[in-house]
Amino acid sequence: MKEKLSIVKIGGNIIEDETALNAFLKLFSNLEGKKILVHGGGKRATHIASKLGIESQMVNGRRITDAETLEVITMVYGGLVNKNVVAKLQALNTDAIGLTGADINAIKSVKRPVKDIDFGFVGDVKQVAHQSIDKLIQADFTPVFCAITHDGNGQLLNTNADTITSQVAVGMSALYETSIYYCFELNGVLEDINDKNSVIKHIDSNTYKDLLDRGIIADGMLPKLENCFDALRNGVKNINMGNTAMLTQENNNFTTITL
Amino acid sequence: MKEKLSIVKIGGNIIEDETALNAFLKLFSNLEGKKILVHGGGKRATHIASKLGIESQMVNGRRITDAETLEVITMVYGGLVNKNVVAKLQALNTDAIGLTGADINAIKSVKRPVKDIDFGFVGDVKQVAHQSIDKLIQADFTPVFCAITHDGNGQLLNTNADTITSQVAVGMSALYETSIYYCFELNGVLEDINDKNSVIKHIDSNTYKDLLDRGIIADGMLPKLENCFDALRNGVKNINMGNTAMLTQENNNFTTITL
Repeated sequence: MKEKLSIVKIGGNIIEDETALNAFLKLFSNLEGKKILVHGGGKRATHIASKLGIESQMVNGRRITDAETLEVITMVYGGLVNKNVVAKLQALNTDAIGLTGADINAIKSVKRPVKDIDFGFVGDVKQVAHQSIDKLIQADFTPVFCAITHDGNGQLLNTNADTITSQVAVGMSALYETSIYYCFELNGVLEDINDKNSVIKHIDSNTYKDLLDRGIIADGMLPKLENCFDALRNGVKNINMGNTAMLTQENNNFTTITL
Repeated sequence: MKEKLSIVKIGGNIIEDETALNAFLKLFSNLEGKKILVHGGGKRATHIASKLGIESQMVNGRRITDAETLEVITMVYGGLVNKNVVAKLQALNTDAIGLTGADINAIKSVKRPVKDIDFGFVGDVKQVAHQSIDKLIQADFTPVFCAITHDGNGQLLNTNADTITSQVAVGMSALYETSIYYCFELNGVLEDINDKNSVIKHIDSNTYKDLLDRGIIADGMLPKLENCFDALRNGVKNINMGNTAMLTQENNNFTTITL
């Protein structure tokens, strides 16, 4: 039987709130077994970009990563956020190592081809070096990934943190029984979007179809869940969605998704 | 006999010049054997700080690292510079991994005590985790350190890159026969500061005394050489100073320092 590996993703809302971040990192440190953290960057990059006089260009609600924006993202995600998270984890006795996809060639991606929109320096993940990442894990280090990859030719690329999470989990499934924990603002996938306590505890392929038929899965959640099932079909054992408290043993009020 | 390990340090002048940086990274990639790169940050941080409206406070010609300046340093050294260097090295088939002293708890330091001057968030190196660093080297990764350490309590600290270089080299001497390569603008230690070709090829404790007596070692070089002999006394095998061409086999026009 394969050993267990947890891949935990936190979003910008936690990163930006020092108290929430510290509380989360304590939970993450106490999480038993081998683990990987993936973090987004959030509004910090936008804030620093605007201070530097770089305007965030948005097309259809999506940020365009021009060369200047990529610099800011590299500074904020790869430097400021990542290294502070690592230092905080070290203080909690978790032997963290901060990474972009360029480090140890961990995550190679391809610059998104221009169709209708040129997203700029945005990468779509092509390859996860699961054996290299495992060398770090086997050395008892805890990888902390930020949302940056590279193309193997010297170019860093801005990459969606959820995608990094699922692709790293899929890659590591060759060696481990992997679980993803997507920490977000909600308690889980909700039966009634207006009732934060209406958490659907378990979703599998069958109940998912039913939820779709009943129109329970709303716009924002649909691509998230599609990505989840894609990861599950590619080897990930289970995916959990909820607030950070799902990392504790006591709380079971979150959504677990399996095939 | 111990295996050889080269620790190469480049300064801000190379970091800031894309052509020089690319040329150097090629030389570094071609350098045989196990190796570590240490880089400074240079004026990029000052430039970005001033764009962000943060004034660099200088006391007696030394920069004071207040909280805002430390943020910029973490962004520029730990993010922008370090991750671009890593991506460029990957393109040259060197399996680089970018690190601060917080990552894998590699370099622990102590915030410099306030005497006459409060330098702010500046760290004096206390401990190098040579065994953790060696785990990366044994896994065939090439560590790339920027000039940031941590105090073990969650605080990142700005730390002199020359000091990081010598302290890492001293630490790694427990396991390897270590050589330091300090790449700088000069061809080496010069007999005559006005003649760039008057490189002193070899300095040891005896000839060093003689050079001191004759007043050859000038102000800027004095602390550098004192640090070199300190590192040599603590286990480093030899220290080389010169321009980046000293990394090639053909060039022997640089200064080698031994005990």
